[in-house]
Amino acid sequence: MNTNTNYQNLKDSYLFARVSEKVKALKEKEADKKIISLGIGDVTLPLPKTVVSAMQTAVSEMGHANTFRGYGDYEGYDFLRQEISSYYTAKNVDIAANEIFVNDGAKSDLGNILDLFSADNTVLIPDPVYPVYVDTNIMAGRKIIYMDGNCENGFLPLPCENIKADIIYLCSPNNPTGAVYNNEQLSLWVDYAIKNDAVILFDSAYEAFINDKSLPSSIYQIKGAKECAIEFCSLSKTAGFTGVRCGYTVVPHELRRGGQQINEMWYRRQSTKFNGVPYIIQRGAEAVFSDEGLLEIKENISYYMENARIITDTLTKLDIWFTGGDNSPYIWLKCPNGMSSWDFFDYLLLQAGIVGTPGSGFGKSGEGFFRLTAFGNREDVILAMRRFNDFDSQGNC
Amino acid sequence: MNTNTNYQNLKDSYLFARVSEKVKALKEKEADKKIISLGIGDVTLPLPKTVVSAMQTAVSEMGHANTFRGYGDYEGYDFLRQEISSYYTAKNVDIAANEIFVNDGAKSDLGNILDLFSADNTVLIPDPVYPVYVDTNIMAGRKIIYMDGNCENGFLPLPCENIKADIIYLCSPNNPTGAVYNNEQLSLWVDYAIKNDAVILFDSAYEAFINDKSLPSSIYQIKGAKECAIEFCSLSKTAGFTGVRCGYTVVPHELRRGGQQINEMWYRRQSTKFNGVPYIIQRGAEAVFSDEGLLEIKENISYYMENARIITDTLTKLDIWFTGGDNSPYIWLKCPNGMSSWDFFDYLLLQAGIVGTPGSGFGKSGEGFFRLTAFGNREDVILAMRRFNDFDSQGNC
Repeated sequence: MNTNTNYQNLKDSYLFARVSEKVKALKEKEADKKIISLGIGDVTLPLPKTVVSAMQTAVSEMGHANTFRGYGDYEGYDFLRQEISSYYTAKNVDIAANEIFVNDGAKSDLGNILDLFSADNTVLIPDPVYPVYVDTNIMAGRKIIYMDGNCENGFLPLPCENIKADIIYLCSPNNPTGAVYNNEQLSLWVDYAIKNDAVILFDSAYEAFINDKSLPSSIYQIKGAKECAIEFCSLSKTAGFTGVRCGYTVVPHELRRGGQQINEMWYRRQSTKFNGVPYIIQRGAEAVFSDEGLLEIKENISYYMENARIITDTLTKLDIWFTGGDNSPYIWLKCPNGMSSWDFFDYLLLQAGIVGTPGSGFGKSGEGFFRLTAFGNREDVILAMRRFNDFDSQGNC
Repeated sequence: MNTNTNYQNLKDSYLFARVSEKVKALKEKEADKKIISLGIGDVTLPLPKTVVSAMQTAVSEMGHANTFRGYGDYEGYDFLRQEISSYYTAKNVDIAANEIFVNDGAKSDLGNILDLFSADNTVLIPDPVYPVYVDTNIMAGRKIIYMDGNCENGFLPLPCENIKADIIYLCSPNNPTGAVYNNEQLSLWVDYAIKNDAVILFDSAYEAFINDKSLPSSIYQIKGAKECAIEFCSLSKTAGFTGVRCGYTVVPHELRRGGQQINEMWYRRQSTKFNGVPYIIQRGAEAVFSDEGLLEIKENISYYMENARIITDTLTKLDIWFTGGDNSPYIWLKCPNGMSSWDFFDYLLLQAGIVGTPGSGFGKSGEGFFRLTAFGNREDVILAMRRFNDFDSQGNC
C-alpha cells in the first residue's frame, strides 16, 4: 500500500505558529503590556440580526416533524441559489441558479475543484499568495510556476506570453496584498486563458469590500470569462461567516475543457463526495441577501473599511509605501528602513506591542513586506496607529 | 489543459432517478392512491429537543460580540471531540480526542480520505454496496476488485487469501443489506489487513442501531485494528442529522503506512482543504452525546427499529428470505417467485403502492434482491405491511 508521496514535498508552514510563539513569549515577559493584533484574518463583529433570526427560525423548524428537513440538494437549496443569482444580476452579470453550487466556504471548493483536472497540468500562482493554492497543488503533484508581485506591478502580475499554463489562480481583491485588478487587466487574463485553453480559478472572497464602482467585482463582468473561469465566493468576510461556513462556486455552462462540461463534472464530484451545506446555515445565508441583510453587512463592512482608512492614513503620513486598504480589508506595506519582514515583525511587536503578519510568510516576493488587517476592534486600531505614529521611520518603495 | 479523464469511466447512476420517474408516473395515473415509501434512506423524525435547544443557544451566541465564534480548529472543537472520546470509552475503546476529526458527515471524509493514498493501490469493495465507494475510486483511476455478498455468506464476505488488496471497504451494519459482522469475522479482516499492509476504511454510520451487545459496534473493539483501520461515523441516522451534517473520522496514532503517520497526513489534508464544521452544528452534535441527548436518540432509534420489526415479522410470516432489520434500519430481502429486482419493484408499486429500492441498483450481486428501510412513519409501515400480507407469494433463498 502506497501513500500519496507528494505529501512529503509539502513545506511545514510555521508562519502563524511562529507569530504565536513570539507573541506568547512577549506576553510572558511583559504581562501588563496591551498587545494589539492587526494580523488576524478573522472577523470580529457578530452576525447580523437578520441572519441570527433566520437561523433561529430554521433551528426551530428542525425540531418539528412537519417542517423538519433531511437531505438537501447537493448543490444547495434553490431558495439560496436564486438569491445568489439575483446578487449577480445586481452586478450586471447573468448567472443562472443551476450554475451556482453552494459550498461550506471557498477554501473547500478551491481545493476540491482540482479533482476535475489532470495532475499533468501546469499551474500559475501569484507570489505572494494565500498558501492553500500552493499546497493543494503540491499534494496533487502538479508543476507550479510563480508570477511575482512587486511594487512596480503594484502586486498585480499580468500574463506573460512566453509562459504556458493550464490553471491560473487570481485573487482580487487580493489576500495578502489588498490589490485589485481593473477591467483591462482582467481582460488580459481572460484573453490569455482562452488563448491557452486554460482555466482561471478566480478567488472572489473579498468582492464585497470593493468601493470603487469602476473596478470589477466578478470575473464574469469581463467578456469571455464564462468560457474560461470558475469563480469562488465566500460569506466568511462578507457576512462574518468564518465560523458559520457558507459560500458559493460558480461554474458557467459555457465552460468546457477536454470535451467535457465542467459544470456537469463538478456536479458529479459534489454529488459523490459531498452531502450539502446544513439547512440551518443555508437559511442564514439566504438572509444575508435580503434587503435587510445586505444593509446590515454593508454596515459591518464599512466598520472594517473605516479601520482600514485609519491605518492607511497613518502609513501615508509616515510616507510608508503600501497597497490595499481602499477596496480591501488588507493593507500590504513596505517595511520601513529596508527591514526584512521578520525584523519588522519583531520591531513592531517589541517597540509598539502590535502584531502583524510578515510578508515573507506568503512567498519569496513577500520578503521585505508586511500585512496588516482591518478586522480588529476600532479602539484598538486607533491606539495601534497612535503607537505607529511615534516611529521616526520612512519606507520608500 | 487536460481534465480528469477517469470521470468518463463513471456509469450514470439512474437508480433513484428511475425510481422517482416510475413513482411520478403512477401518481399521475392514479392520483388518489396512497403511495408508501419504504425506500428512502433519509430520516423522518425531527431533531431531539436537547439538540434544538443547544443550537438555539449557539445561534444566539453568534449574535453577540463577546460570545461570537470565528474560525474554529480544523479538526473540530475540543468540547465535541472530548464527548466523542467518552462515547468510545463507553464501548470499551480507548480513542484520544486528537485521534478524532469532526466532519460534515461520513460521505465527505470517505471520499476525501483517498487523497492520502496513491492511485496505484487496489481497492476491495463489497457487492452489493453504497455506490460512493465505487465512484470515488473510479474518479481516482484505481483498480477495483469486488467481493460478492450472497445468501450463502449472509452478505458478509470474508477475506480471500488469494486476493491482494491495499484499501478495503467494510460497512457494518451494512447499507444496503443490514447485515452485521461479528467479532470473529472482523478479526479475520483485521488479520488480513495487517498481513497485506492494507488499510480498512470502516463505515460505521449505523453503529447506533446495534441491539445485540455481542456484536462489535466499532472496528477498534477488534485487537490490532488501530494499526490498520480508519473508522467513519455519522450522526445522520444516529441523531437525525441528514440535513444538519456532522460526524467524525477516527485516525489512530498507531496507523502508519509508507513510513508516514496517517493521522498527521489527514490533519495536513484537512487544514489545507477544509475549514471545519460550523460552531452551531458542533454544539448540536455535543448535545447528542449528553445524557439527555443519548436518551432522546435512543428513543428515536427504537421507533425506527420497531418499524423494522413490523417489516421483518411480515416477511417471516410470508416465508420470504431476508437479512438485516434486527441491528439495522435496512432490510434486504430475496424477491419472491424468483422475480428480478426491477420486476419486483414494479409489482410492489403497482399492486401495493409501496416504493422500495431494487437491489440491482447496488451492484450485480444485488440482482434478485430488494431493500426496504425502516425510516418511515409508523402508520405507513403498518399499512404497507398489511398490503404486503395480501400477497400470495413465497421467497426462498
